[in-house]
Amino acid sequence: MAAENARRERNKAQKRERITAAASRLFATQGFAATTTAQIAEEADVSHGTLFRYAATKAELLLMAGNTRFREALGSGRTACETIDDPVERLTALVSPMTADTLSLENLAAYQRNVLDGSPDEEHRAEALRLVDELIAAIADILRDAWRSPDAPDPRIAAEALYASLHVLILRTERERLDGSAFIHDFREHATLVVRGYLTTPRERTSS
Amino acid sequence: MAAENARRERNKAQKRERITAAASRLFATQGFAATTTAQIAEEADVSHGTLFRYAATKAELLLMAGNTRFREALGSGRTACETIDDPVERLTALVSPMTADTLSLENLAAYQRNVLDGSPDEEHRAEALRLVDELIAAIADILRDAWRSPDAPDPRIAAEALYASLHVLILRTERERLDGSAFIHDFREHATLVVRGYLTTPRERTSS
Repeated sequence: MAAENARRERNKAQKRERITAAASRLFATQGFAATTTAQIAEEADVSHGTLFRYAATKAELLLMAGNTRFREALGSGRTACETIDDPVERLTALVSPMTADTLSLENLAAYQRNVLDGSPDEEHRAEALRLVDELIAAIADILRDAWRSPDAPDPRIAAEALYASLHVLILRTERERLDGSAFIHDFREHATLVVRGYLTTPRERTSS
Repeated sequence: MAAENARRERNKAQKRERITAAASRLFATQGFAATTTAQIAEEADVSHGTLFRYAATKAELLLMAGNTRFREALGSGRTACETIDDPVERLTALVSPMTADTLSLENLAAYQRNVLDGSPDEEHRAEALRLVDELIAAIADILRDAWRSPDAPDPRIAAEALYASLHVLILRTERERLDGSAFIHDFREHATLVVRGYLTTPRERTSS
């Protein structure tokens, strides 16, 4: 019984992976709008019925594929910023992998909108919101480090503000059909402002 | 001929106004999701065919109704902040009328998403983007005033960053089913950060 359950779980994980990979490939090559769920089922070599057990709508498939990509980009960003000292350049390096592929900026914008869109009850959106929280935490860590003191003030508001900039700048980059380098330029300017705002936070009086 | 044209234009403007008002009322009382275009046509006393000459989709009707409300809120906000001195309180007073009606926060979030969603080619979205630009300019004016000097640095980045916070905080307030007062509290914290970041902008060297 245990072996049977293990095999079933393994099969499920493999199918989920195939579906996620197929959705990613098709969104990347033909765009989110032009891709149908039937194409994704065919590319993943599963029936349409099976597909719908993993994701009920195309929007959920976008979230599934986007979550995988977001997780990878966050990992690359964390690694890239480890060796950088300047906080603005560290923040820029952290977010750069998300927009490295300018072809996929349209899909990224669609993903971002879906993430912040409505109820967090759906499984893939809940996962996406956890990734957003991880990104905000990574931004907060860089800000706290920049203070270069153990009694740095809480960086949460500054990290949230910079995440908001990131989100709105991605939508603008897509809307105005700009490319990834325009996004990086604008993000760096917003990061400069937020870092300055955070580093001039008045220290709370500490009881001594 | 001139009189005929004038009458036709007047009729058109009246119909547009009736449709906008009908959409606003229905969205406000039953929510965006539950409202149908047929209900809006009936409430506005126009045929479904006529309705579609003014707005082809429910999303466009949301933009039409939202634009009217956004314009009114921007006017109220500008008036409210005239007599306030502190920049953070001025910024909070500027945006407060947009979220004054907590019942409509769901519609505001839907409107905001539609505004930043995709192509700016559609007429009502183009108008909405102009209103966003007006709001960002109003934020920039308050920031520039706060510098209390004729050689204040360019407030554009800070104004954009604060608009981004506004947008993302509205979506979060709706997603987490918070109320308008939670939004105002969070917005004030973001405004405090951005004002501090802006007021510590290094002055450009000026040729003397």
